Amino acid sequence: MVVWVPQDYLNDILLNINEFTAIKKYLSNIGASYASHISTNVGDDCAVYQSSCHQLISTDVAVEGVHFPKNLPAEFIARRAVASALSDIAAMGGSLEGFTLGLSISKTDHQWLAGLRKGLQYIARKYQVPLIGGDVVKGPTQLSVTAIGSSKKSPILRSGAKQNDIVCISGKLGGSFLGYKAYLENNCHSAASKRYLSPEARIQYGKCCSDYVNSMIDISDGIFQDLSHLTNSSRVGARIDFKAIPFLSNDYAKEIIKFGDDYELLFTVSPKKIHQLEMHLANHRMKLFRIGVIDGKKTIIDNLPSKITTKGWDHFA
Amino acid sequence: MVVWVPQDYLNDILLNINEFTAIKKYLSNIGASYASHISTNVGDDCAVYQSSCHQLISTDVAVEGVHFPKNLPAEFIARRAVASALSDIAAMGGSLEGFTLGLSISKTDHQWLAGLRKGLQYIARKYQVPLIGGDVVKGPTQLSVTAIGSSKKSPILRSGAKQNDIVCISGKLGGSFLGYKAYLENNCHSAASKRYLSPEARIQYGKCCSDYVNSMIDISDGIFQDLSHLTNSSRVGARIDFKAIPFLSNDYAKEIIKFGDDYELLFTVSPKKIHQLEMHLANHRMKLFRIGVIDGKKTIIDNLPSKITTKGWDHFA
Repeated sequence: MVVWVPQDYLNDILLNINEFTAIKKYLSNIGASYASHISTNVGDDCAVYQSSCHQLISTDVAVEGVHFPKNLPAEFIARRAVASALSDIAAMGGSLEGFTLGLSISKTDHQWLAGLRKGLQYIARKYQVPLIGGDVVKGPTQLSVTAIGSSKKSPILRSGAKQNDIVCISGKLGGSFLGYKAYLENNCHSAASKRYLSPEARIQYGKCCSDYVNSMIDISDGIFQDLSHLTNSSRVGARIDFKAIPFLSNDYAKEIIKFGDDYELLFTVSPKKIHQLEMHLANHRMKLFRIGVIDGKKTIIDNLPSKITTKGWDHFA
Repeated sequence: MVVWVPQDYLNDILLNINEFTAIKKYLSNIGASYASHISTNVGDDCAVYQSSCHQLISTDVAVEGVHFPKNLPAEFIARRAVASALSDIAAMGGSLEGFTLGLSISKTDHQWLAGLRKGLQYIARKYQVPLIGGDVVKGPTQLSVTAIGSSKKSPILRSGAKQNDIVCISGKLGGSFLGYKAYLENNCHSAASKRYLSPEARIQYGKCCSDYVNSMIDISDGIFQDLSHLTNSSRVGARIDFKAIPFLSNDYAKEIIKFGDDYELLFTVSPKKIHQLEMHLANHRMKLFRIGVIDGKKTIIDNLPSKITTKGWDHFA
């Protein structure tokens, strides 16, 4: 009999023995002070929590060498992976309840795990959200984060855009690409690299929008890719003025669009409600950028530079 | 500037274009007929559902070459990975609400994805549970499954075992190890390999137990490993009669204990309630196996064969 067990499986069992130590040491009590609604936490078969609202659940996977470079410190791997998952709750206008972490690591490296814990604690404090469970296994480095949120009102879907809605975004694009570029140049956490190493999930912004907007999505795959998801779901087109899209650097507009990863929110709002929304955002020291209108069935980008193509995005004219 | 973007990141973007096709073709409408409580499904930022019960959330990761062999057909990779996550809901005595899938794959192989879909559909039908969302990324093959459940009553925790409780398990151990052995010998799905290729999450059994038992856990890491989690959480010890543990093959008891992966339930029940539980289980054509009692602070295994050691498990005498 060929025995695959004693090789891979027993290694896994050895790691399993460590798994429980690793969970206790590095993954327990992350955001415990924000876990009053969670009755059982890391360490049982499931996390348990109670809520009478709409429940929101989203899973995001981050792979070493694909979503983050191999040498990225674990603290920033954690910050990036979790923020990316929390951003999906923001895109529904929801509040955060907790998150779980499926962690695959090739070996038990305590320094690495301590960095990961630091990143998770940063997230827990920043968003006041607890880590409520997960799994640690042996394998190529990957983080799978499931974000759990809630919404007292109906959540904002991608599919709600209406003709004549104004298309807006929550902030300037390019922080992640330019931050990544700065990180490659300086290899450290700085003001310039911050938005790549520690992207922000716009939870507060999404909640502010939830009473006003008709549709919303987060810009994780690049503005045109995500716009196409929104317009396709809503069965509408849009007329976008490229010049109205706020880039942190127009020189890198093409790269910024391809890179995505900015986690700003893209949303549509009725012309009747946009002033109210702008005032509501201003009260929270936030603003919006108008980039076009929902119009017809096909999407047209005016003033598109010749070096940028919309080929590859569905339903673009 | 070293540009890491055009290599890995653009590949990811290319896969992202496929990601949406892959999600639509292979991951949409899995268990849709069981999704009446889910208001938004695969295809928005989050899944949305409403529930006023205790919410149960658990994440499990399955890695190629660790949790399943490289050549295992995708249908069984899916069956194994999802059943393992659902088993955690069973271990709390909960009902299933849905699951999400974080899928990392190295390339878009349509035949493989079609097999995966078949496995997911099998799970959806068997447990009447919908796939409600997830993520598809490029990377080493891994499945991260987050199971979502609910419980009207307080869920059964690992930490509830009381002195004099009777320690029981839900079925014979070894189906997975012996099934794996049969699979290696015949390389196909057969009656002998079924319990490895398609393990059962004992949802119905767990629900039957929920009114009677004081503590519960699923046997995923091996009976003694999981027993130690239960006794440690409950701050008790147990006196177990090894001869009372039902193995499908006593010749392979050692291997079966190390292999784990059986997903039977291990639970403790007051002597006053055990007859009621046995009758309740019998009404559902199920039974329990008594293997010992909760006793003192240390765990003692009587009649332990000399070739089996309890070294490595916390708090074993």
